[in-house]
Amino acid sequence: MSILVVGSVAFDNIASPSGRVENVLGGAATYFALAASYFTRVRVVAVVGDDFTADHENVMKKRDVDTRGIERAPGKTFRWGGRYTDNLSEAKTDFTDLNVFEKFQPKIPKEYADTQFLFLANIHPSLQAAVRHEMDGIRLTGGDTMNYWINGTPRELAEMLKLVNVLLINDTETKMIAKEPNLPRAAQKVLAMGPQALVIKHGEYGATIFFRDGAFGSGHHPFRAPSLPIEEVQDPTGAGDSFAGGFMGYIASQGELNREVLKRALFYGGVMGSFAVERFGTERLQDLTREEIDARFQVFRELTHLA
Amino acid sequence: MSILVVGSVAFDNIASPSGRVENVLGGAATYFALAASYFTRVRVVAVVGDDFTADHENVMKKRDVDTRGIERAPGKTFRWGGRYTDNLSEAKTDFTDLNVFEKFQPKIPKEYADTQFLFLANIHPSLQAAVRHEMDGIRLTGGDTMNYWINGTPRELAEMLKLVNVLLINDTETKMIAKEPNLPRAAQKVLAMGPQALVIKHGEYGATIFFRDGAFGSGHHPFRAPSLPIEEVQDPTGAGDSFAGGFMGYIASQGELNREVLKRALFYGGVMGSFAVERFGTERLQDLTREEIDARFQVFRELTHLA
Repeated sequence: MSILVVGSVAFDNIASPSGRVENVLGGAATYFALAASYFTRVRVVAVVGDDFTADHENVMKKRDVDTRGIERAPGKTFRWGGRYTDNLSEAKTDFTDLNVFEKFQPKIPKEYADTQFLFLANIHPSLQAAVRHEMDGIRLTGGDTMNYWINGTPRELAEMLKLVNVLLINDTETKMIAKEPNLPRAAQKVLAMGPQALVIKHGEYGATIFFRDGAFGSGHHPFRAPSLPIEEVQDPTGAGDSFAGGFMGYIASQGELNREVLKRALFYGGVMGSFAVERFGTERLQDLTREEIDARFQVFRELTHLA
Repeated sequence: MSILVVGSVAFDNIASPSGRVENVLGGAATYFALAASYFTRVRVVAVVGDDFTADHENVMKKRDVDTRGIERAPGKTFRWGGRYTDNLSEAKTDFTDLNVFEKFQPKIPKEYADTQFLFLANIHPSLQAAVRHEMDGIRLTGGDTMNYWINGTPRELAEMLKLVNVLLINDTETKMIAKEPNLPRAAQKVLAMGPQALVIKHGEYGATIFFRDGAFGSGHHPFRAPSLPIEEVQDPTGAGDSFAGGFMGYIASQGELNREVLKRALFYGGVMGSFAVERFGTERLQDLTREEIDARFQVFRELTHLA
């Protein structure tokens, strides 16, 4: 089944201990779309500028991503530059030029009307809410956000949280939204604000999914997936969006929505995140095979499962 | 089979958001011994002062811990005071009075000569090495250390590392010993210094065990165990030592030393750590049942295992 991602397409300058690249294709929607494309058909709504060429678009088209929702606007594409120091867990931003992304108003092509799965990448929560309201027939909505919106637009964020079925954020964002330093307690508070499930991404330590009582099944036990201990992390950029792409893409590829599907999806999220960081930009996500993905899924299983 | 722990017995003053306690029985050897006592017979070598009463000793005796190796010295028992703020992941030390522990020279009772499993809790690495050299017939030695020895006595630490089969330390200590910021690479460097296996404790994110090629089996895949998302952490003191007690105690209870045993031991380590933090001091570790422990082992399994 098709999944639609709404978010940023960007050009990035990235420096890490492994090297540096300039003007590489990036953005949350790009990472998400490529990662999800190994599981299901992906549609994209984004905005780019005059500098976005057919070659750039072909990166997505080669993965069968439907790019009809990528709007061309006069001006330049969103540009971001950042660097990672030794620990690789946090980027230091050198510059952020929003360019055409500053006035982004998502327009959903008519051809996307039958979309059943939706991922609202990190944009203004009011835009996220507007997109969700515009779409009928959505079976499951995933969403992301960031500290900028948590602090700056808390009311709009609260409205958005009522519209997403699964929220995917990190530890710090969870604690910020809940105003609660204990992570499991913070998770319960966020779930009480709307989502049926909350995926908390712990970076190199994996991710945990918390369920609202009765959501997607019974009980209230959380579930944890690992990340891979990787000796050569070239570029952590896009790891979280690739995680979301693997997670949501796998869910969209399944007929049912239940806890076992969401648990396996959490593993596939970790798998796609682990591939993303092996090369700069989206390079590794462009040339994978489903066999490689399933082999790594097995590695994740062996990493965590007792005999 | 018996396991011997050599380390500190202390009285602690602890404050956390959940309350405060004074002069409660603590110390690495105490937490370790109580946690391990649910799996196997435990022997202790430590030193205490005049203020260590029969009531204190009975806390261990009630758990069938062999306390004949606890030496009485003139003076006061080691005392530590610390507090946890909101995040609970790090203690702020208020005071450390080593007292009789300052001149601790471990003396192994003759009756302990047939011990097969040994845990060297965090003391001077030269003392750790001396204990190991004194013991014949040890099948497996586990060891701990801390930043104080890593920075202050690196040569002595390097000697100690050649004598332990399994080292149990945290992320920061691993990176410090290896002088390497990437954790999986740091793990390989530490393994090259001596231990056959390295357990890295990630606090609220669980723990990972890395194996040297060929040690305890074949292959080189690491294995990860979770920790429990706990909404009510009263007191994190002793979590790491309780982890070590569960890990080593389970290993000592098994006939064989292979990777499956060490993997299950990693889960039992997490289980005992999760109990320890539920109450102040060693309170929770004093009154458990093996049934409660195995029930929580199942919770850990459900937290991580796909159907």
